[in-house]
Amino acid sequence: MTQHSDLREKCGVFGVFQSPSAAHDIYLGLHAQQHRGQESAGIVTSRGPGHCLVYKDHGLVSQVFDRDIVEQLDGQFGIGHVRYSTSGGLSRKDIQPLVVNHRGLNIALAHNGNITNAAALKEELEVGGSLFTSSSDSEVLLHRIVRVRSDDPVEQMRQGLRGIEGAYSLVLKFDRGVAAVRDPHGFRPLHVGRRDGGWYFASETCAFDILDVETVGEVAPGEGWYVDADGPRQFRLLDPPVPRMCAFEVVYFSRPDSLFRGRSIHQFRIELGRRLFEEHPAEVDAVIAVPDSSNSAALGFAQAAGVPLDIGLIRSHYTGRTFIAPGQSARAAKVKQKFNVVRDVVEGRRVAVVDDSIVRGTTCRQIVKLIREHGATAVHFRVASPMVSNPCYYGIDMPTREEFLVNRVPHAELARYLTADSVGYLSPASLRAVVGADTCRACFTGEYPVPVDPARSVIQKHSEVEIEHHAVL
Amino acid sequence: MTQHSDLREKCGVFGVFQSPSAAHDIYLGLHAQQHRGQESAGIVTSRGPGHCLVYKDHGLVSQVFDRDIVEQLDGQFGIGHVRYSTSGGLSRKDIQPLVVNHRGLNIALAHNGNITNAAALKEELEVGGSLFTSSSDSEVLLHRIVRVRSDDPVEQMRQGLRGIEGAYSLVLKFDRGVAAVRDPHGFRPLHVGRRDGGWYFASETCAFDILDVETVGEVAPGEGWYVDADGPRQFRLLDPPVPRMCAFEVVYFSRPDSLFRGRSIHQFRIELGRRLFEEHPAEVDAVIAVPDSSNSAALGFAQAAGVPLDIGLIRSHYTGRTFIAPGQSARAAKVKQKFNVVRDVVEGRRVAVVDDSIVRGTTCRQIVKLIREHGATAVHFRVASPMVSNPCYYGIDMPTREEFLVNRVPHAELARYLTADSVGYLSPASLRAVVGADTCRACFTGEYPVPVDPARSVIQKHSEVEIEHHAVL
Amino acid sequence: MTQHSDLREKCGVFGVFQSPSAAHDIYLGLHAQQHRGQESAGIVTSRGPGHCLVYKDHGLVSQVFDRDIVEQLDGQFGIGHVRYSTSGGLSRKDIQPLVVNHRGLNIALAHNGNITNAAALKEELEVGGSLFTSSSDSEVLLHRIVRVRSDDPVEQMRQGLRGIEGAYSLVLKFDRGVAAVRDPHGFRPLHVGRRDGGWYFASETCAFDILDVETVGEVAPGEGWYVDADGPRQFRLLDPPVPRMCAFEVVYFSRPDSLFRGRSIHQFRIELGRRLFEEHPAEVDAVIAVPDSSNSAALGFAQAAGVPLDIGLIRSHYTGRTFIAPGQSARAAKVKQKFNVVRDVVEGRRVAVVDDSIVRGTTCRQIVKLIREHGATAVHFRVASPMVSNPCYYGIDMPTREEFLVNRVPHAELARYLTADSVGYLSPASLRAVVGADTCRACFTGEYPVPVDPARSVIQKHSEVEIEHHAVL
Amino acid sequence: MTQHSDLREKCGVFGVFQSPSAAHDIYLGLHAQQHRGQESAGIVTSRGPGHCLVYKDHGLVSQVFDRDIVEQLDGQFGIGHVRYSTSGGLSRKDIQPLVVNHRGLNIALAHNGNITNAAALKEELEVGGSLFTSSSDSEVLLHRIVRVRSDDPVEQMRQGLRGIEGAYSLVLKFDRGVAAVRDPHGFRPLHVGRRDGGWYFASETCAFDILDVETVGEVAPGEGWYVDADGPRQFRLLDPPVPRMCAFEVVYFSRPDSLFRGRSIHQFRIELGRRLFEEHPAEVDAVIAVPDSSNSAALGFAQAAGVPLDIGLIRSHYTGRTFIAPGQSARAAKVKQKFNVVRDVVEGRRVAVVDDSIVRGTTCRQIVKLIREHGATAVHFRVASPMVSNPCYYGIDMPTREEFLVNRVPHAELARYLTADSVGYLSPASLRAVVGADTCRACFTGEYPVPVDPARSVIQKHSEVEIEHHAVL
Repeated sequence: MTQHSDLREKCGVFGVFQSPSAAHDIYLGLHAQQHRGQESAGIVTSRGPGHCLVYKDHGLVSQVFDRDIVEQLDGQFGIGHVRYSTSGGLSRKDIQPLVVNHRGLNIALAHNGNITNAAALKEELEVGGSLFTSSSDSEVLLHRIVRVRSDDPVEQMRQGLRGIEGAYSLVLKFDRGVAAVRDPHGFRPLHVGRRDGGWYFASETCAFDILDVETVGEVAPGEGWYVDADGPRQFRLLDPPVPRMCAFEVVYFSRPDSLFRGRSIHQFRIELGRRLFEEHPAEVDAVIAVPDSSNSAALGFAQAAGVPLDIGLIRSHYTGRTFIAPGQSARAAKVKQKFNVVRDVVEGRRVAVVDDSIVRGTTCRQIVKLIREHGATAVHFRVASPMVSNPCYYGIDMPTREEFLVNRVPHAELARYLTADSVGYLSPASLRAVVGADTCRACFTGEYPVPVDPARSVIQKHSEVEIEHHAVL
Repeated sequence: MTQHSDLREKCGVFGVFQSPSAAHDIYLGLHAQQHRGQESAGIVTSRGPGHCLVYKDHGLVSQVFDRDIVEQLDGQFGIGHVRYSTSGGLSRKDIQPLVVNHRGLNIALAHNGNITNAAALKEELEVGGSLFTSSSDSEVLLHRIVRVRSDDPVEQMRQGLRGIEGAYSLVLKFDRGVAAVRDPHGFRPLHVGRRDGGWYFASETCAFDILDVETVGEVAPGEGWYVDADGPRQFRLLDPPVPRMCAFEVVYFSRPDSLFRGRSIHQFRIELGRRLFEEHPAEVDAVIAVPDSSNSAALGFAQAAGVPLDIGLIRSHYTGRTFIAPGQSARAAKVKQKFNVVRDVVEGRRVAVVDDSIVRGTTCRQIVKLIREHGATAVHFRVASPMVSNPCYYGIDMPTREEFLVNRVPHAELARYLTADSVGYLSPASLRAVVGADTCRACFTGEYPVPVDPARSVIQKHSEVEIEHHAVL
Repeated sequence: MTQHSDLREKCGVFGVFQSPSAAHDIYLGLHAQQHRGQESAGIVTSRGPGHCLVYKDHGLVSQVFDRDIVEQLDGQFGIGHVRYSTSGGLSRKDIQPLVVNHRGLNIALAHNGNITNAAALKEELEVGGSLFTSSSDSEVLLHRIVRVRSDDPVEQMRQGLRGIEGAYSLVLKFDRGVAAVRDPHGFRPLHVGRRDGGWYFASETCAFDILDVETVGEVAPGEGWYVDADGPRQFRLLDPPVPRMCAFEVVYFSRPDSLFRGRSIHQFRIELGRRLFEEHPAEVDAVIAVPDSSNSAALGFAQAAGVPLDIGLIRSHYTGRTFIAPGQSARAAKVKQKFNVVRDVVEGRRVAVVDDSIVRGTTCRQIVKLIREHGATAVHFRVASPMVSNPCYYGIDMPTREEFLVNRVPHAELARYLTADSVGYLSPASLRAVVGADTCRACFTGEYPVPVDPARSVIQKHSEVEIEHHAVL
Repeated sequence: MTQHSDLREKCGVFGVFQSPSAAHDIYLGLHAQQHRGQESAGIVTSRGPGHCLVYKDHGLVSQVFDRDIVEQLDGQFGIGHVRYSTSGGLSRKDIQPLVVNHRGLNIALAHNGNITNAAALKEELEVGGSLFTSSSDSEVLLHRIVRVRSDDPVEQMRQGLRGIEGAYSLVLKFDRGVAAVRDPHGFRPLHVGRRDGGWYFASETCAFDILDVETVGEVAPGEGWYVDADGPRQFRLLDPPVPRMCAFEVVYFSRPDSLFRGRSIHQFRIELGRRLFEEHPAEVDAVIAVPDSSNSAALGFAQAAGVPLDIGLIRSHYTGRTFIAPGQSARAAKVKQKFNVVRDVVEGRRVAVVDDSIVRGTTCRQIVKLIREHGATAVHFRVASPMVSNPCYYGIDMPTREEFLVNRVPHAELARYLTADSVGYLSPASLRAVVGADTCRACFTGEYPVPVDPARSVIQKHSEVEIEHHAVL
């Protein structure tokens, strides 16, 4: 799949208690997780009770923060967030971490995931007099936690999160400490690390590596951590754990150098690529990846095939936001701006092109065409995961169901549609075998961990629209 | 008083229902009231139920808005706000109008004034589960109004504002209409205008003039208006009216072309200048104003004195934000950047310098010195209001009590301190005679309309601080 | 005349040798002369041979420079410039001071004026192999000066400026010193000041006042100064002096607190106002000025008339760049955004409205109408200078000849056109009597000091256009 | 070599005559060559004689240009440029294309390369009266070409470029057409392409691929093309051709998908990798590349070794400009922000790490350390080119000679310095065998095609410094 065009992870989170360079740690921890959200970034830090500093804005971590700001973000603990918007642009007030001041205490929250009964919960809170300033499901979490009458953050989280359905990997900054909580299904990742007596929390372990933080393990599904000056406390949520970790993190989202159950994502993908070859072999002269997200799977495929991996597609990393001239085919032009074929790698050869996943299929179609135009005698398209055929309700932004390739093109015509000589994708069984049965593979299989009622789920969009005035860079 | 240096009005508000060019009307109405607040500007418009557009930012009206944005602010009704920050910089989330979405309705509020029991009210609301995102007293008003269980905005405002103490001239945008409400004392001004079947509300009538809106009158103290498609409804607040209009609006804040009780502020100031001469005559060759806020008072003074008004001080209007070189006396340098003396107007002459008011006295001291350095043989300093000696709790940002000149320099030494040959300021009795007994003159007299308990008044500053990153222009 | 709408001075210049705070001095000196040019600002400073720092950009002095930049502009001497563009926007490369490096030396030039044989000179230089990067006449001056084979800046200026026709008040930064030169007619002003052993040069003396620099006198027409570590040298240009100082500086451009022949501009304007009344008396109840540029003339008029001056027009100083809604009359709307009438000053009264000059007459027409609409029973329009009827070739940006009111409306119909009860403007003889016979009054009289041949004068616009991308503020 | 940290190509150029979408073609052509220069971008377009539009600024192509600007850049032909600054920041006036207007004609120039007798040429021109506004060697070329008295651009280029020493791959926009010229050594690449009757010129062929332009071939060393409405004209420069194409383009600079003598750079690098293994074999369990610039060489190495290529280093593409906390080792921190090790790829294994080149060696040292810290039992460092030991005078920005690793660490201690088990780099003979004898390999061998006299070469830096004021993004 062409990175960042079809599916988008909604967020990455980071938290630390405590560190003499808390803000800079969070800054680097977010930077390392930039692939999880590129539209906004925010950091909240604190020196302790009654002290709280906030900075957040639209843009990449390196654009939002500079030395000056990070230095101003004084404090020994704090949290951070990077995010994508959902459809239609990210309103400034939805940029996380969300921060409130309640009865003299400052509480901040950063959320990766999606609440599936948010609308129902919001209505309940509004009847009780709560005022919402956003249409974000994360604001619901904050109200729920804060309204619990307790001085103990652990108690506030346990009671406040009871009955919350859906996906939430949270880090929170309380008045005296930092917390990390993962929903009972554990849809989205959340890890624990240690360095110099401080505790760290991050969506992915690559955020620890950049800081020389040692990865301790995961926050288990249905579990939480709260760390303050009295040390760490682990706790269980009131709803029972039913682990269903997101398989798509392995297939595509996470960085290959991040860990999943203690092994690198890279190794999982190699295994997916190997199985892919076993299920769908191809007689080819070369195997080429759709860089960079498919590199590992292509390596596995090539190894299994005993055919050399070659570099036939070059990906430009200066994508920025280029635009298309009127009259150009937008899709074709964008693919060309991102990928170029190395002619003498494919010319006169039979090639297997390995992609990590297939959603709409429009981009891979262009890639196949491009390779063919550069003289490949045969193009065998291979996908290292099953076809995506169902929407995700747990934190991944997807196209609508109608746009899925599987719903537009009959299986028998796939190869013709993609202009490929053959097409093969991984079976659900192989995926399960590689990532484990306790994962959520609903987008591939339609088997949702819990039924989702859209009426209870989707908070009606605020009719209020904040007009954005983007200064040209 | 040197404009904008010692005292600052906190806000200006504007509302309209309805107009085919609602956003542009609000834009110009705010522009005309720019002197009431230069740190942020915001506009909210609507086409009707379930539609609401917002744009607000730091800066002047002409900086925040451009044609594009105003055109995007589609709608037939709406409200707007300009404001100063209080001490320490204006956080982005405190920029008004405040907007919330509650149970599917959009409500926006713009507030000029200051609530003196805000802290007590906020605590009460928090106990009831309300979450606050700012430390603004205006947010308290919004919670109070929105929590009233009624579908009738008039009922929501009447019940919600019961027991609110202090100053509030409000305009609100409800789902179907626009409201304007003024507290029972009527501290801050609020006017009603009409044009082409539409209703307009503004802090000052100069905002109507720019739009050819006809001034109908004032929103009376303790009164409110609500206008929607069913026409206008006038209503009384539940707390009884005790008019105490702010005398400082007449002395300094309001534009001279705005109306106060049907007459131009200019005429009131001429009268203050006349009485000033009667109380403190001076044998001089010329009368000169500290431009521009004292022009009218100086005119009255010169007329009463039978001495020609001359132009001895030139004020630069390109002040922007210049800065001082290290080692310069900041105060002296700033005065020089703003004022220059016309040497041959003052050289060898005895002059009366008329200022509108005196707070810290540091600027007027520099002005007197400057005039003297340019060869005046005598400088008689005259102030067209009493000495400011008490803080304002009703919406004016003042220096601390210790900084008041009256508290720093004994009356007998005033002239010497100011390096003037004589000093004279208006008596409280004369001020009352000109502006009326039903005004608030607490900053001059210490007689507050209602006792203010700081503990119940001041919302404790959020320890949370939003770090501002000002891009250099 | 409504300030800055019809006529525009093209530039202000400033120079200093030497001062420990050279950059800050220039910064303030430009700030004080901001009225002479608001589209760009630039400063060049130096510590001596082989050292030169430059900063310039579009915008006001307070927008272009901040503390950081001024502190980086290290050096003991330097020059600065503020300017207007001519028609069609100011290209970045035309922002002054212009700076070149020639044979290891840095030379910078700031120019106020306009060269009337620039095209002929440019062609001559191009034949000799010179390359131009702008269509600015100032670049021609720089080439001429630099091409003189001499190590003596005075010699370079004397020979290089020989035969240059038109208006040039220049300040230059050479490798070791600073120069100021004024063309033989002395069209545009240029003054000399002293402080603490340093020498200062500025277009207007108000730039000295802000710095406590003592005004020494003018750079005489046809004269130059060069100051370096060896002290000041005065020199004469090779073309003989024929003083023709610009009368419009007195009528409108210069600040009232600046000096003209040792007296304040304010006093000259009072005198113009007095004579205006003598030539065109009016029976009125009040005299009102079109603020702020006509304040002095109105004062003189009122004094001569023995009628009280009143403040009937309030000028908004927050003009920024507001825009007009589609369908509005642009001219009427702009006048309304800038001026408001104080109704009870004019209602039921006969008023004389005094303006400083009249060019297109469209704005004054709106003002007269506005005053009439607010209830004046008679409006007598008075102008403190003759009608502008000829273009200026010496540094003032004017509308085309066809747009002059005098060329559009017959004299007999002027009052009707302006909707005034009577119109009166100053006679050329009176103007000459006040400002002196040795002034250029060509725009009023058509008598140009030297004949101007447009073919030799106007450098053909570069067909090259630099596309400007204005970031929204 | 870690991309973009040690060596930097100075520029990329692009030209087209003619295309209905000339500006958009140039925009994409520059975007595809973004790796050749990331500090500024500029485009000049024209509709024909007397028409010329320019836009250029600091930043990436995608930052400098947006749809609006490209649409404003009307015209059927034009040129573009991306560039790095040399040391110390890029002054705005050095942003290319340079544009002049001479005797009514517009000429624009974009230059990739470096002139080695620029100082001598500049002095000669200055004696002749030329004025320079920059210290750029490219400005010298422009003066030389424009001063030739001929109406024929071909003649102007042939005569103007006679005697110019050094590297220049130029595209120029004349009044009626576009030209491309390459110096007699042909140091820097320059290609010719065709599409729909239009002619295209670009530094690299990847710029053609993005536009579906067909690559026709190279502009030969010492050759030029001029295309206008009369069709293309090929011409020879007066100085005789002595081809010396830059070997470093093959080793590192050019994109792998660009062509060098008709074959992809990728294939050349595979060959370099193969020979590297032959010269310096290693017994390892895995071969890993320093991504992305070494991917091809690592592939060749792995193939020759018969050892699987693996992905052991992950490169973050969101580098932006992150900063280092005080006290951190800057180099180590930067390496960590760019590269992360996949632990389970290297843990317990013997790995060969392949880099494309070695200059300062500080980054590779960090990489080796990082890999070792992650558990590799042996790290063999292999470099697919000889050691860089001499500065480049032909357009590559290098560290000073003292910083070269070869000059800091004796050969015998290299492995120890890099903390590697062994180090091997390609022999000069192998490099020559792969890239050809007619290349410039002076940076590896010290054999410069022509002797360079620094005194005649380096234009003395303008002592003038334009202070840059970077708005924070």
